[in-house]
Amino acid sequence: MKHGGDLTEAIARHGGDPGSWLDLSTGINPWPWPIPQHLPDHAWRRLPSRAESEALLEAARKTYGVPAGAGIAAASGTQALIQLLPYLAAPGPVAIVGPTYGEHALACRNAGHPVIAIDDLAACPADAVHAVVVNPNNPDGRATDRAVLTRIAARLKERGGWLVVDEAFADVDPAISAVALCPDWPIVILRSFGKFYGLAGLRLGFAIGAPDIIARIAEALGPWPCSGPALLIGTAALGDQAWADHARGTLEQQARKLDQVLAKAGFGIAGGTPLFRLARHPDAQKLHAALARRHIWCRRFDWAGDLLRFGLPPDAAGLDRLAAALSD
Amino acid sequence: MKHGGDLTEAIARHGGDPGSWLDLSTGINPWPWPIPQHLPDHAWRRLPSRAESEALLEAARKTYGVPAGAGIAAASGTQALIQLLPYLAAPGPVAIVGPTYGEHALACRNAGHPVIAIDDLAACPADAVHAVVVNPNNPDGRATDRAVLTRIAARLKERGGWLVVDEAFADVDPAISAVALCPDWPIVILRSFGKFYGLAGLRLGFAIGAPDIIARIAEALGPWPCSGPALLIGTAALGDQAWADHARGTLEQQARKLDQVLAKAGFGIAGGTPLFRLARHPDAQKLHAALARRHIWCRRFDWAGDLLRFGLPPDAAGLDRLAAALSD
Repeated sequence: MKHGGDLTEAIARHGGDPGSWLDLSTGINPWPWPIPQHLPDHAWRRLPSRAESEALLEAARKTYGVPAGAGIAAASGTQALIQLLPYLAAPGPVAIVGPTYGEHALACRNAGHPVIAIDDLAACPADAVHAVVVNPNNPDGRATDRAVLTRIAARLKERGGWLVVDEAFADVDPAISAVALCPDWPIVILRSFGKFYGLAGLRLGFAIGAPDIIARIAEALGPWPCSGPALLIGTAALGDQAWADHARGTLEQQARKLDQVLAKAGFGIAGGTPLFRLARHPDAQKLHAALARRHIWCRRFDWAGDLLRFGLPPDAAGLDRLAAALSD
Repeated sequence: MKHGGDLTEAIARHGGDPGSWLDLSTGINPWPWPIPQHLPDHAWRRLPSRAESEALLEAARKTYGVPAGAGIAAASGTQALIQLLPYLAAPGPVAIVGPTYGEHALACRNAGHPVIAIDDLAACPADAVHAVVVNPNNPDGRATDRAVLTRIAARLKERGGWLVVDEAFADVDPAISAVALCPDWPIVILRSFGKFYGLAGLRLGFAIGAPDIIARIAEALGPWPCSGPALLIGTAALGDQAWADHARGTLEQQARKLDQVLAKAGFGIAGGTPLFRLARHPDAQKLHAALARRHIWCRRFDWAGDLLRFGLPPDAAGLDRLAAALSD
């Protein structure tokens, strides 16, 4: 399984339909920001306007705490930015802190950059022109210290390189964000809208960085990278601070409940964020198969046979269903 | 005005609000395919699945008549593909048949390709590695003959180049499409969903071409380039042949009515497609300003002072309002 969140393969192997599965294979908030029942017609019909784009970026600047000396650009999902950045970055090897989200390495290689796998940003080698770190990391939740980010960014700057900090899961702990470093260093921060706001199908994400880097990204994205609904919904959701505060509390509480169920089933909690838990079990592969037969889909990894990643069940019934399946 | 369809500038200069303006600056069908009142929650919440993407591509294959020997990829609008192609194409100059949609030249230059402006594809020079033709052309509606497309594609093939055929407005006359040539030549065809289906805010477009070229494009787009709503709405709309047949009739009829109004005001019809009309008038610039003061927004061009482009007014009242403003 290359990605979570796609039941196509699970259903092909084990039957059922999307509604009958308990999909725990993603890190997407199962309690989304409540989109309006009816969007204005023009959101679908007209090309998004400059005024709408600017309103979105303004809301994102506030929510993400983007300093005045940094730029921000919106795209149809951070994945679109992950795909694009390697074409814009100077040639040269990219050090990627792993194990992590696999698409960074794929996109770098596709665009012709050699990839150097490292297990700690502090150990970024001298021949790396660029570096990528997911912070907090997926799937283990590891945080990279701001002093390390600054030190490596300073080194890469000398080499004409960029430090890409993928903050896809930083909304659950905004203090982790490195946005404050953007005006001073060649850091490109990626922020995902869909995960924390529970609206992954909307496709919305942001790049934050020094103004010259962001201008280059915006130019390469071209006009209208985001849909009309993404602009309207993104602007409203990012402006809803009360919802975000409440969501952080809910996610933490539900993550603790999930941990209890996993611990009771003999898992050791190996890491994660409040949006997903990484759990270790000697029989992880057997358990993955047993859960799949009961139409519960979690995430496994080709680099660790004893680890599974679980997203949050959307309700008490889902948590009970997981607990029952694990105790069988 | 760089693009039509954005009233931000018009409102800044002349006041009013988006609802009070008659926006004739685009080539977007003002009678859109009727989207459902309520989309299923999962379209917004989950990552689009492989099954949903395949259903969209299958519907697009049928509607666009894509031969079995060609590939197809979906993106969040053809603009996203216009931005991407120059990064994937072999280095070298790009001949662009103009005057035409300005973003092709911009995107090519941004990605480092020299641009050669030509006024006829048949005159594609020997030093061009690639060529771009919009067919039918925007804004004049000129069609490029299939024999010419084939001849130039054959020459570019020898140079390792691509012929990009932007069929953004081909839905109004499907017989014009060059999809049948894709299996044999290095042709990349771009199809826009939003214009003919009247849903430009959805952001959906397609690239069609030889399987190896399309595989390269799909790889560079990465996973989930389209939103959940775009997949669902696109699949349903592209499968609605009865709507498309009816829309073609409506657009032709309304374009004739618009021509009558323009002719009565002293314009000569210089070209266009049923989605927009290009009209010539010695006082075009004055008329553009006079219409803007009455909050009617049409498109002018920096390369021709006597031409204006008009999209279709959405109803009889809009047409009457245009006629009245032009007769003042």
